[in-house]
Amino acid sequence: MRKLEDLQALIATSVEQLKYPAYPAELYEPISYILSIGGKRMRPALLLMACDLFGGDVEAALPPALAIEVFHNFTLMHDDIMDNAPIRRGRATVHEKWNQNVAILSGDVMLIEGYKLMMQVRDNILRRVLDIFNETAVGVCEGQQLDMTFETSSNIGIDEYINMIRLKTAVVLGGALKIGALIGEADEKDAELLSDFGVNLGIAFQLQDDILDVYGDPVKFGKQVGGDIISNKKTYLLIKALQLVKGSDAEELQRWITFTTFDNAEKVTAVTEIYNKANVRQYAEDEMQAYAEKAFKALEQINLPEDSKQYLRDFADGLLVREY
Amino acid sequence: MRKLEDLQALIATSVEQLKYPAYPAELYEPISYILSIGGKRMRPALLLMACDLFGGDVEAALPPALAIEVFHNFTLMHDDIMDNAPIRRGRATVHEKWNQNVAILSGDVMLIEGYKLMMQVRDNILRRVLDIFNETAVGVCEGQQLDMTFETSSNIGIDEYINMIRLKTAVVLGGALKIGALIGEADEKDAELLSDFGVNLGIAFQLQDDILDVYGDPVKFGKQVGGDIISNKKTYLLIKALQLVKGSDAEELQRWITFTTFDNAEKVTAVTEIYNKANVRQYAEDEMQAYAEKAFKALEQINLPEDSKQYLRDFADGLLVREY
Repeated sequence: MRKLEDLQALIATSVEQLKYPAYPAELYEPISYILSIGGKRMRPALLLMACDLFGGDVEAALPPALAIEVFHNFTLMHDDIMDNAPIRRGRATVHEKWNQNVAILSGDVMLIEGYKLMMQVRDNILRRVLDIFNETAVGVCEGQQLDMTFETSSNIGIDEYINMIRLKTAVVLGGALKIGALIGEADEKDAELLSDFGVNLGIAFQLQDDILDVYGDPVKFGKQVGGDIISNKKTYLLIKALQLVKGSDAEELQRWITFTTFDNAEKVTAVTEIYNKANVRQYAEDEMQAYAEKAFKALEQINLPEDSKQYLRDFADGLLVREY
Repeated sequence: MRKLEDLQALIATSVEQLKYPAYPAELYEPISYILSIGGKRMRPALLLMACDLFGGDVEAALPPALAIEVFHNFTLMHDDIMDNAPIRRGRATVHEKWNQNVAILSGDVMLIEGYKLMMQVRDNILRRVLDIFNETAVGVCEGQQLDMTFETSSNIGIDEYINMIRLKTAVVLGGALKIGALIGEADEKDAELLSDFGVNLGIAFQLQDDILDVYGDPVKFGKQVGGDIISNKKTYLLIKALQLVKGSDAEELQRWITFTTFDNAEKVTAVTEIYNKANVRQYAEDEMQAYAEKAFKALEQINLPEDSKQYLRDFADGLLVREY
């Protein structure tokens, strides 16, 4: 089994070798630009990993892996317009560096380029692979739409929230693993189980992210602690708190959410205090644990040798046990 | 051979039957909305026509035909954002009726839905059909980018302009015909020739549109005569005039292009006068004729019975001989 870091490095090299036409420059330069900004290349690495675990040819899985990375960056390019984000990973976003029209149209072409790469699979799995890719891509768009809708909704249920993060973040992990498994000649049942592993792990990971935003070590977390609180982001913690807190705590939470000017540190401290009293961290950790267990349960049922399962368990542990 | 109007009617009915999920509403309602606005359904009808001419099953070609229509409407939804257009065919554009983010994301899903429909072909042509669809889709994006780039460029050549309209308008006609032909079990050579017919006809049609905007009968043309002149649109006529006119005419043309306030009728009359002196209408008609001849030349070489060729000739004549 190849190490995850080696697969990530292989992806990084292959992404650099992706070449697009020089003309029209405004259409293709942004694609090379956003792909060059980097990231952990986790999604394509998962595709290669799945292929490798089932004894498939990792090199043959490279184009579909790149498809997942190009697709992911298409969603980032369009999401950044929608979120009005000026910076991604320390670099100007495409709509900032060029303009919004360029970001719309380059993103559109990236989605098509994703299909072109995804089609580079054996004839006997082409239709199946594209079906999974379509379903994944639609899911991500639905998740992004729900995320935007929730921002202005006052009454989101936990189930709706979990469904949103499943679509926006988790299905693409499941899709990448499933496609990789099929390229590695896994049977449909094992591919499906590996996808379940990925989806549930993805949900657990996103819940952990919600927890870390409030309770994480700012150095290890790598983000500003309390950023979600400051921006009123509808996380698991906030949704749960809004359901649980009563009386003066509820009024105070509502006040902090509706304030347009406030001291950031003061808001983070006050809202965290309310979260603590309502014990929402525990609820979130229990939920995260429940999804992690679902992931491990799917893993147990896969027809793979024990050392391959251990590899996947170690991977999941590495993803989930980030120090607080 | 089925009549074009019958094929268009079949498409119209089938478009109405396309159903999308109810949730998330902001993602899917705009798709049904833009598809309901109508239009001539020319592109999908061409796909069905090509299939029919080669003796294929028109009903089996319906999903790919709908794919072309959904794809076309995806490009309209995104183009309308880029062009800042409030109205299309008398109805509010999606970004006006909802908002821009909705138009970006619904458009993205439409592109994916287009692939889902396009995949509904026999296994033995799936890869070939998707290759053509990819190439067509990339071409349309390139054409849209060139069109936007040209709006702010001062020095566009006729060749660049023809290339732009080929990509933006004509390749999708060629792609629709080629895919339809392959579904109808045409061989690759005939499919390619039918595509050439469509692409060259599309270029001729767009050149005719440029001519009609200035010289057309406003009632028959259905648009405001001179609209392109008023908005300084880089048409064949303007590009040619900018190349040909010298001295005081050149100065006057430049003045009209740079004026920010002017009387519309006065500008149309003055610029048309300059066009007439430079004889650009004749150049445009010669160019249009040259592409129409290329189209007919490709048609001659197709291995189809004479009555089928006559059907396509009549179709082309109907498209090109719109009264002035």
